[in-house]
Amino acid sequence: MVRAIEWIEAEVPAVRIIDQTLLPASETYLDLTTIDSLADAIQRLAVRGAPALGAAGALGVVLAMRQGAREGWNGARFAAEILRVRNARPTAVNLAWGSDRVAAVAGRGIDAALAEALAILQEDEAANRRLSHLGADWILRTTGKSRPRIVTHCNTGALATTAWGTAYGILHELHDRGALGLVYVDETRPLLQGARLTSWELAKDGIDHVVEIDGAASSTILRGLVDVAIIGADRITADGDTANKVGSVALALACRRAGIPFVVAAPSSTVDLKTATGSDIEIEERADDEVLAYGAVPITAPGVRAFNPAFDVTPHDLISAVVTERGVVEPAAGGLMSELWTTAQAR
Amino acid sequence: MVRAIEWIEAEVPAVRIIDQTLLPASETYLDLTTIDSLADAIQRLAVRGAPALGAAGALGVVLAMRQGAREGWNGARFAAEILRVRNARPTAVNLAWGSDRVAAVAGRGIDAALAEALAILQEDEAANRRLSHLGADWILRTTGKSRPRIVTHCNTGALATTAWGTAYGILHELHDRGALGLVYVDETRPLLQGARLTSWELAKDGIDHVVEIDGAASSTILRGLVDVAIIGADRITADGDTANKVGSVALALACRRAGIPFVVAAPSSTVDLKTATGSDIEIEERADDEVLAYGAVPITAPGVRAFNPAFDVTPHDLISAVVTERGVVEPAAGGLMSELWTTAQAR
Repeated sequence: MVRAIEWIEAEVPAVRIIDQTLLPASETYLDLTTIDSLADAIQRLAVRGAPALGAAGALGVVLAMRQGAREGWNGARFAAEILRVRNARPTAVNLAWGSDRVAAVAGRGIDAALAEALAILQEDEAANRRLSHLGADWILRTTGKSRPRIVTHCNTGALATTAWGTAYGILHELHDRGALGLVYVDETRPLLQGARLTSWELAKDGIDHVVEIDGAASSTILRGLVDVAIIGADRITADGDTANKVGSVALALACRRAGIPFVVAAPSSTVDLKTATGSDIEIEERADDEVLAYGAVPITAPGVRAFNPAFDVTPHDLISAVVTERGVVEPAAGGLMSELWTTAQAR
Repeated sequence: MVRAIEWIEAEVPAVRIIDQTLLPASETYLDLTTIDSLADAIQRLAVRGAPALGAAGALGVVLAMRQGAREGWNGARFAAEILRVRNARPTAVNLAWGSDRVAAVAGRGIDAALAEALAILQEDEAANRRLSHLGADWILRTTGKSRPRIVTHCNTGALATTAWGTAYGILHELHDRGALGLVYVDETRPLLQGARLTSWELAKDGIDHVVEIDGAASSTILRGLVDVAIIGADRITADGDTANKVGSVALALACRRAGIPFVVAAPSSTVDLKTATGSDIEIEERADDEVLAYGAVPITAPGVRAFNPAFDVTPHDLISAVVTERGVVEPAAGGLMSELWTTAQAR
C-alpha cells in the first residue's frame, strides 16, 4: 500500500510525501525538510485529503522543531512557522487538529512531539480500518444487496490518509469480503482526484470500476445504476453537516430523490463539535487557473474569470450515515455527532 | 453574430459550419460537400446543439440531392444516405425532425427542398427570438428580481442553433433589457461546451460571467448565489420530461431544494409528443476517451474504463417552465406539452 505521508529520520530529517500532482503519470516522492516546502506542498495539493493533512499538521510541528534547532529560531518564530502549516488550508479541520495536538506536547521536547505525531499516524490507520468494517456492515445491512454498486467522489484512499482510506477503505473492505459491485468514480474536477488518484488506487487493488464525469453522477444515481453513494469529509459539524470536495452535495440530492443511502466516512478527528452547523464553515476558494486551464492548455478565451470553491456543504438531513471508528451516526434520522462520545459505541 | 451552420451556393454547393471542436482557440469554417463529411461533423460534434442539428438534418437532404445528382445515386442509395445523417446521433429529436420535413418535399425537386430547409433555418431564428422574449418576461415576473443571476449548463447560444440561441437567447434578451445579473457557466465536461463555447459567446456579447466546474453548480444554487437556472433541451417528451446535456438534472434537483425556478428553453420542434415520458428516451453513450483524456493527455492510468452518457433526463416535476416560441408550459404544476398546440398561445 502506498504511503501518502511519513516521517524520515535522516541527517536532515524530513516529511516524505508522494507528489500527488504528478499521479498517475509519475510516482515521485519528495523529502520536505523545511516549513516552506511543507506549506507549499499543502497549498498546491501535493499532499491532500483531510486525514493526511492531519498527519501533515502533526509532523509539521516536529519539522519546525528540527528546522528551528538548526536555524536558531526563537519562540515567536517557532510559533509563527507552526501556524503557517496549521492555516495553510482553511476548510479541513484535521490540519489544525493534528498541529494543535502535537504543539500541546512540544514543551516536553522533540522526542515527545515525534511520538505524539507518529501516534496520530498510527491511530488514523487503525481508525480507517475500524470505520471500514463498520461502514461495510452498515451498507450491507441497509441496502440488503450482496454486492452493492457504489458511486464515490474525489479521493479518500491511502493517498488521502495515512493508510487504507476512509470511504475508499469501505470499498476495499467490501471488495475483500467479495461483496462489492461495480464502482463509479467521479473524475472530480478541477484537479481530477477521482480520475487521477482513486482510479489509480482501485486499479492497484484490482477493484472493477468506471470513471464518469462529475455531471453524470446524478443521473447514474437516478437511473438506478448504484445502490449507495459514499464520500469522505473535510469537516463535519455538530449537527452532521459535512464539508467535502465540491460536487458532493449533488450526489446527496440525487440519493434522496432515488431513495438510496448517502454515506459519509471519516475518522472522528474530522468531527468539529465546536462548529454548530454547515453555514459556519469557511469555504476555501482557489485560483481561477485550476478551472480555466488543463495543464498548460487554456480551455476558455483569454480574460475569462472563474468561480472555484474547493468544497461544498451537504446538509445533515440528506446524510443517511456518518461512519467513524467510534460508531455510526444517522443525521437524517436526527442523530447528532456528539453521540459518538456520549453513548455506547457502534451500532 | 456567428452562424453555426448555413447553406453555401457555389460550384460545388456546401453546408458551411464553424468547427466547434476547435473553439475558442481557432475560428475555422468547414465547407461540407458530401454526406460523409456532414455525418462525420455531426458525430464528432463539430456541429452540435439540438436546433443546429435540426438545420443539419434539413440541409443534409439538400446536400444528398446535390451529391446524388453529381454521382448518379439511385433512390435506394439516396434514402440510405439521408438516413445516415438523420440517425447520426440518437437523442436530439430535431435532427430527425429537420431531415424528415425536407425529405417530405424532396419529390418536388431541389429548389423546393432547399426552400424548405432554408425556411427551417429562418423559423428557428424567429422561434429563438420569440421564446427569448417570453422567457425573459417569465423569469422577471416569477423571480421578482430586477437583475436575476443565472446559472446555465452546456451551450445553447448561436453556436447551438441557427442564430440567437435558446436558453442563451434569454440571457441575451435580459442583458439587452439591462436586467441580467452575473451569469454562472458550467464548464460542461467532458467536451467543455460551457467553458469553450458559451463563455466565448458571452465574452463576444459583453455579458459578465464566471465559469465554474459542473460539480460546483449544486452548491452555487444552494448557497443562494443564483436566482434561476436555465438550460436548453435535446428532446422534451409529452409529459415535459427533458433530455439535455448530462449534468442538467443536478441543477434541477438543487433548484428544487433551494426553491428557485428551473427553466428549460427550446423551440417547439424539440418537443416530441410521440414519446410519452423520459424513460422512453434513448440516451447516447459516447467513447471512453472523451472522459479519460484531455486532448492528447491521458488523465487516468492505462486500461481504465469510463462511463460516458452524453445526456440525462430531468423529470418534469422538477421543471418549473418549458419556454418555447409557442408559449410557456409549467410541467411541475401539471402542464402538458400538448397545451402548446391546443390552447391559446403564450401566457
